[in-house]
Amino acid sequence: MGNVYKKIELVGSSREGVDDAIRGAIAKASESMRNLDWFEVKEIRGWIQDGQPQHTQVTLQVGFRLDDE
Amino acid sequence: MGNVYKKIELVGSSREGVDDAIRGAIAKASESMRNLDWFEVKEIRGWIQDGQPQHTQVTLQVGFRLDDE
Amino acid sequence: MGNVYKKIELVGSSREGVDDAIRGAIAKASESMRNLDWFEVKEIRGWIQDGQPQHTQVTLQVGFRLDDE
Amino acid sequence: MGNVYKKIELVGSSREGVDDAIRGAIAKASESMRNLDWFEVKEIRGWIQDGQPQHTQVTLQVGFRLDDE
Amino acid sequence: MGNVYKKIELVGSSREGVDDAIRGAIAKASESMRNLDWFEVKEIRGWIQDGQPQHTQVTLQVGFRLDDE
Amino acid sequence: MGNVYKKIELVGSSREGVDDAIRGAIAKASESMRNLDWFEVKEIRGWIQDGQPQHTQVTLQVGFRLDDE
Amino acid sequence: MGNVYKKIELVGSSREGVDDAIRGAIAKASESMRNLDWFEVKEIRGWIQDGQPQHTQVTLQVGFRLDDE
Amino acid sequence: MGNVYKKIELVGSSREGVDDAIRGAIAKASESMRNLDWFEVKEIRGWIQDGQPQHTQVTLQVGFRLDDE
Amino acid sequence: MGNVYKKIELVGSSREGVDDAIRGAIAKASESMRNLDWFEVKEIRGWIQDGQPQHTQVTLQVGFRLDDE
Amino acid sequence: MGNVYKKIELVGSSREGVDDAIRGAIAKASESMRNLDWFEVKEIRGWIQDGQPQHTQVTLQVGFRLDDE
Amino acid sequence: MGNVYKKIELVGSSREGVDDAIRGAIAKASESMRNLDWFEVKEIRGWIQDGQPQHTQVTLQVGFRLDDE
Amino acid sequence: MGNVYKKIELVGSSREGVDDAIRGAIAKASESMRNLDWFEVKEIRGWIQDGQPQHTQVTLQVGFRLDDE
Repeated sequence: MGNVYKKIELVGSSREGVDDAIRGAIAKASESMRNLDWFEVKEIRGWIQDGQPQHTQVTLQVGFRLDDE
Repeated sequence: MGNVYKKIELVGSSREGVDDAIRGAIAKASESMRNLDWFEVKEIRGWIQDGQPQHTQVTLQVGFRLDDE
Repeated sequence: MGNVYKKIELVGSSREGVDDAIRGAIAKASESMRNLDWFEVKEIRGWIQDGQPQHTQVTLQVGFRLDDE
Repeated sequence: MGNVYKKIELVGSSREGVDDAIRGAIAKASESMRNLDWFEVKEIRGWIQDGQPQHTQVTLQVGFRLDDE
Repeated sequence: MGNVYKKIELVGSSREGVDDAIRGAIAKASESMRNLDWFEVKEIRGWIQDGQPQHTQVTLQVGFRLDDE
Repeated sequence: MGNVYKKIELVGSSREGVDDAIRGAIAKASESMRNLDWFEVKEIRGWIQDGQPQHTQVTLQVGFRLDDE
Repeated sequence: MGNVYKKIELVGSSREGVDDAIRGAIAKASESMRNLDWFEVKEIRGWIQDGQPQHTQVTLQVGFRLDDE
Repeated sequence: MGNVYKKIELVGSSREGVDDAIRGAIAKASESMRNLDWFEVKEIRGWIQDGQPQHTQVTLQVGFRLDDE
Repeated sequence: MGNVYKKIELVGSSREGVDDAIRGAIAKASESMRNLDWFEVKEIRGWIQDGQPQHTQVTLQVGFRLDDE
Repeated sequence: MGNVYKKIELVGSSREGVDDAIRGAIAKASESMRNLDWFEVKEIRGWIQDGQPQHTQVTLQVGFRLDDE
Repeated sequence: MGNVYKKIELVGSSREGVDDAIRGAIAKASESMRNLDWFEVKEIRGWIQDGQPQHTQVTLQVGFRLDDE
Repeated sequence: MGNVYKKIELVGSSREGVDDAIRGAIAKASESMRNLDWFEVKEIRGWIQDGQPQHTQVTLQVGFRLDDE
């Protein structure tokens, strides 16, 4: 039987922008999960304050290999 | 690093209709998860019996903040 | 050979709202069809009069088992 | 030349649920616009507090006829 | 309150093809989860080597009933 | 005037897998309709029992030429 | 109970182009159905011969009111 | 800072067909807005009477440059 | 082994409208490719000047049979 | 009655890239509108010159609270 | 600079079914292209004759690494 | 006859992030093609290693004018 992967959906947020929000979500996920393998961006949105984007939020699906196979 | 959120996908069902199916799924999720923050409706469907909708099923994504950051 | 189902697309309308429009479309369909099994909401829209939604229209696909198998 | 319509996008919110959020957005729009004609639901989401949906938010497009033609 | 279901997203892979990749993902999921009820195919893709598809990957959402209700 | 076709939506199910569910739906449709011309797969899903896909369900649109033209 | 409508899916084809293919499909549908009310274009495609589009095919959903209500 | 554009959504209608409905919506928009730059067709639908399409309705997004930058 | 087709994506433009933009793209493609078989419209948009659509642009996928099989 | 929000669609452009185009569109919007609350990225595209992306264009929907409620 | 890949769109067809149509399209592509790396299924459809699917057609995007980098 | 454009699909990858992956894909395309005119982002994904995004991959469609017209 081939490998089986699981995908979870995370939302990272950053004051810097898109790339940093991706990094934040993946760093957070790697604290509690092993075998993180790839990500897919599903949505980019954010909050505005005083005429500035305050938080860019990037929704990602993160895929990881299920261990015991 | 900004907050990181996780989204899970639930299906609530109700004999009453759409709003009640949403409430049921969220009440169930809140039994085992903290920091539930928002939901997004993905799909509304249901089962029919005797020419009546018996169960309205609402698929939602529920977002919650990951704790330790 | 397994069961075969057919799906038809109906639009129910109601002055009450979403749940009632669903009920109306299914009740109407059950007058002339047997074995109605499930529905899927495809679209919610409606007509406005005097600053009020007058008719909520819900487009559904309704699935039913084809009899003779 | 035939009629021309404009569509704007509104988000209504309600503690009651989907139908009430639709009514709120349309009532608000009708304060400043004439000739509101139809609406289309684009998205249903909401905020959660204490394991309950606190606000159901319904995003709608509202169409109205442009006057002078 | 009606039943509540959870949906998770898995990717099965197989050298045989689509049906076998579905079976692999579900067999793997059933090792650690009870009450698996249905699946929905979201995506079919794969890796190529030497002009042959080496692994067909099928992304599925798998739904299961949450127990204690 | 050119040909006019009609499309209907069917769901075939099979214990074998995707190709067999397609065949079943088309065989069933051909019992009562003539001039079946093409099909388009819209959705693949199924039911799980004992950690195995029990029925693969394939939703298809089937196109056929309307006769009298 | 409000009106209930049914939607069917037709494909019209024409050597002239998009508008004529729409007209053809609706004219054909009106031969056997009453109360045709609206149409929605779902897809435009066609066949090519000798470097020319030979048939433009327009897939439409056609909505009509169900009679006895 | 680069240019900023705004997009609005209009529905043109015509007894002639698709191209004429596009022209009508844009002509109407140009009565009250400057700097119209491009359009994108979002939807084609229409109303039927006596077995004929009476009005083809084309929903467009129209983009225009915001002036003062 | 059955036939294999390739699909390429073209954008035709015309001052006349949708049908003419389709014809232009296909005529251009047929100058350098053989076996053109079908097309699918993916997008309709255009440029505006002086309150008039100046160029209607139609994005198509064009399918053709690969020769040597 | 709960809050009502309006969403408008803007296209920001920048020689720097995605984040800067978002900032530009929001800064421009805040010159003439109050209560800007959130944004959603709908599309990323751009113009090329001399083998380089010259302008990255980001289409956003910007949501703001309607004042008098 | 990182790797750059190109994706082309092919349609394989087979009397056997989905997996065989995928294999056929990839085998054909590998006759004239090197570095084929992955595929993504975009559409499954087919032609019907005598109440049987005669050809299953699978549309795929095939990705390959551009050589000289 | 108006201009005709072709669109191809490329995947750029970069260790820096989204904007750099776009630049890489376009620079690569410009080595072998003239008249590159615009791009559209279709997908953002990437590979993870050691809890960090290692490669951000951006799938773009790149449009260019076909020469001889």
